[in-house]
Amino acid sequence: MKFITTIALFCLTGIAAAAQNTDSIVIRKLADDILTHNNAYENLRYLCKKVGARLSGSKGAQKAVIATAKMLKEAGADTVYLQPCMVPHWVRGTQKEIAFITGANGKKRNLKICALGNSVGTGPKGITGRVIEVRSFAELDALGTQSVKGNIVFFNFAMNPKYIQTFNAYGESGIARRSGPSRAAKLGAIGVIVRSLASNLDDHPHTGVTSYNDSFPKIPAVAISTNDAELLSKTLMLKMEHRIYLQTNCKLEADAPSFNVVGEIRGSKFPEEIITVGGHLDSWDLAEGAHDDGTGCMQSIEIIRAFKSTGIQPQRTIRAVMFMNEENGGRGAKAYFEAAKKANEKHIFALESDAGGFTPRGFGVTCNEKQLAQLQSYTNLLKPYGVYQITAGGGGADIGPLKELGTVLAGLSPDSQRYFDLHHAETDVFEAVSKRELELGAINMAALIYLVDRNGL
Amino acid sequence: MKFITTIALFCLTGIAAAAQNTDSIVIRKLADDILTHNNAYENLRYLCKKVGARLSGSKGAQKAVIATAKMLKEAGADTVYLQPCMVPHWVRGTQKEIAFITGANGKKRNLKICALGNSVGTGPKGITGRVIEVRSFAELDALGTQSVKGNIVFFNFAMNPKYIQTFNAYGESGIARRSGPSRAAKLGAIGVIVRSLASNLDDHPHTGVTSYNDSFPKIPAVAISTNDAELLSKTLMLKMEHRIYLQTNCKLEADAPSFNVVGEIRGSKFPEEIITVGGHLDSWDLAEGAHDDGTGCMQSIEIIRAFKSTGIQPQRTIRAVMFMNEENGGRGAKAYFEAAKKANEKHIFALESDAGGFTPRGFGVTCNEKQLAQLQSYTNLLKPYGVYQITAGGGGADIGPLKELGTVLAGLSPDSQRYFDLHHAETDVFEAVSKRELELGAINMAALIYLVDRNGL
Repeated sequence: MKFITTIALFCLTGIAAAAQNTDSIVIRKLADDILTHNNAYENLRYLCKKVGARLSGSKGAQKAVIATAKMLKEAGADTVYLQPCMVPHWVRGTQKEIAFITGANGKKRNLKICALGNSVGTGPKGITGRVIEVRSFAELDALGTQSVKGNIVFFNFAMNPKYIQTFNAYGESGIARRSGPSRAAKLGAIGVIVRSLASNLDDHPHTGVTSYNDSFPKIPAVAISTNDAELLSKTLMLKMEHRIYLQTNCKLEADAPSFNVVGEIRGSKFPEEIITVGGHLDSWDLAEGAHDDGTGCMQSIEIIRAFKSTGIQPQRTIRAVMFMNEENGGRGAKAYFEAAKKANEKHIFALESDAGGFTPRGFGVTCNEKQLAQLQSYTNLLKPYGVYQITAGGGGADIGPLKELGTVLAGLSPDSQRYFDLHHAETDVFEAVSKRELELGAINMAALIYLVDRNGL
Repeated sequence: MKFITTIALFCLTGIAAAAQNTDSIVIRKLADDILTHNNAYENLRYLCKKVGARLSGSKGAQKAVIATAKMLKEAGADTVYLQPCMVPHWVRGTQKEIAFITGANGKKRNLKICALGNSVGTGPKGITGRVIEVRSFAELDALGTQSVKGNIVFFNFAMNPKYIQTFNAYGESGIARRSGPSRAAKLGAIGVIVRSLASNLDDHPHTGVTSYNDSFPKIPAVAISTNDAELLSKTLMLKMEHRIYLQTNCKLEADAPSFNVVGEIRGSKFPEEIITVGGHLDSWDLAEGAHDDGTGCMQSIEIIRAFKSTGIQPQRTIRAVMFMNEENGGRGAKAYFEAAKKANEKHIFALESDAGGFTPRGFGVTCNEKQLAQLQSYTNLLKPYGVYQITAGGGGADIGPLKELGTVLAGLSPDSQRYFDLHHAETDVFEAVSKRELELGAINMAALIYLVDRNGL
């Protein structure tokens, strides 16, 4: 018995080792293909330089839909189609945004600001008020209506540099941008200034979406560059009489028609089982949306191309999706989920890349324990390409709704150190992306998809 | 007996767990200190922007010695001193370096080149010849004297993009730069052009040291930008009659006096046991030497500062060393080793950071198996800060000679994807360094030094 068990164990170990060996050869093939073609990088160059900013409802977004549909066809997708969705159409306006502080002596100092996404504008007359600086909501609430009413609240919530994973700092300090305007409006503020969610000190304001609580007046909201946040704070410390002037011209127009862009390779054995891989196609109007999220889109297209180029035929259907409207509405994600639900599609796995095109370190996954153990068993196959950890928890805003369908969700976790230097700011441009880092992300994504396709979940 | 063993094991496990817990608290303290002070980054800014290029023997190198001695004092080192060494003094010359190719139709095309370090110049008259392109030494040797004599050899050895660890590609293709000139001179070539050791395509030639074999004539050697290497190769494929003209003005002058810069914290318990941490202070003349190796120097100084700032008193002596002349001679390393040997110093551990100031991934160590196992047991303490592997083999050019003294050698292994985009080129500037990536490197180095100091080796 013992002998037989040993033999059986030996055989099983042998089979497992052989499978891992085959897998490592296939992954090497995908990696070599991605590292020796320039497609992801050159597609990104096109998206950044020829299309550029592509906020939902804009002409840029329309161009991006056409451009990525073409890229998916060129990548060799069996089917490419557009999935319609209506999107919010927020516009910054064509006039320059203005902010300056005037001291008791009448001296003016300009400040670098930009309106927050989805915020209301001040209109051409602008608004003027005293600045009330706070470093927490508790501090704001303690000040109360008496101090806040008629004034402009300055949320100086710096990102905490002690977090190694910068997304933790972003999540923590981001409450000011996400819900600060209504918290201040509740106490009678006439406008808010939010310190940019940036991990560095520079002169570029970082935009990003805010949302209003309908119970309170909608007041204008802007982000201020980190250097000017420091300056403003120092100015206020002098406790001199001062006024700040803000002028923004943004507004929310009527919803506009738009699309998710989808390209797929049909599975040979289980075509009805769908593996989604995607990023979001829309990007803020201030820059080129290179890391956010041009890279995620180009990596997803690259996976289609690499499977086709290497002749690796998936058993399941692999579907690359460029989601529209992640930044200020999530309508593309909703449309994708609703179509999947309506068609009773079987979505076994969805992978999102929306944390920048930086060197990969891991994946975060939302699934049950057995599935987690299975996915973690692939780590040794990914480690040569930079991914050394698969941790519980993760996915992304665009694939999130699929959880309701029982889909296993995964998100690529690139190194996060440089992301918030440029996130949502005019510095998020093509030149900030490393070709090889972008490709290593695509390689690990392709490898994980290959393994999930091969073994199921 | 069994019971007692279990109890003993329980206690030991408990003690080990408690020690790890204490260690993680101390490392967190070091990390918080480094992440909330700007010293490493601001020191790097000064070194890059106020000192700039600092090739051995240059005025920049002299300024760098004075600047880093000051930084070490400000960091709180107990002792700061200069260790003399004579260094080679190679100069590029003040005249512009020139290269152009002339086709049969008389049309000229300029090419972006720079002389290789330690190479001889062409003199003001320049040299003219046909270009013979080769992609391997075997190809060169097969051509032989008949084809090579009187001509200029173009080593078009592209870095292989399939290596995930880019240093492997650098090592492989780097033979052209390191020994190509004499290989070509042996066959009668009058000059060589080496494709820049760059992982990307751009217009910046990358310099770097070459060395001549004294058995053959010393011929001028230049690096060409990767874009122009591609262009030159395409031009040659047309097999049209052509001539290339090269002019460089470099020369090796008499050896010059210089210094290593040393700053140390004296150990409280075993002051005679020395832990060295360092980078090299010299840098190529084309840029600011930010990643190569301003970051390694600034991280080493930061470790002195962080131990002092947090009040963590090492038991052993920690010595930060800015080595002079790594790029084109290694004289600082030799001087350091010889002084250590002469004084019969006990060097237990030496750590070098000379692979760029990018996000850390691991350490490479040269030591025996027991020591390797001990060092690897620290991985779980480093993982929260990005280092997840400690592998056999590693160290660095400057600490290398200490091996003879039985010293355990270690090198920081940052992510290597972006290094060869800028290595030895004019793009290696302060702006290419991420503050947080630089700091994470320093944190992991400080943590490893703390653990080695606490537990010995």
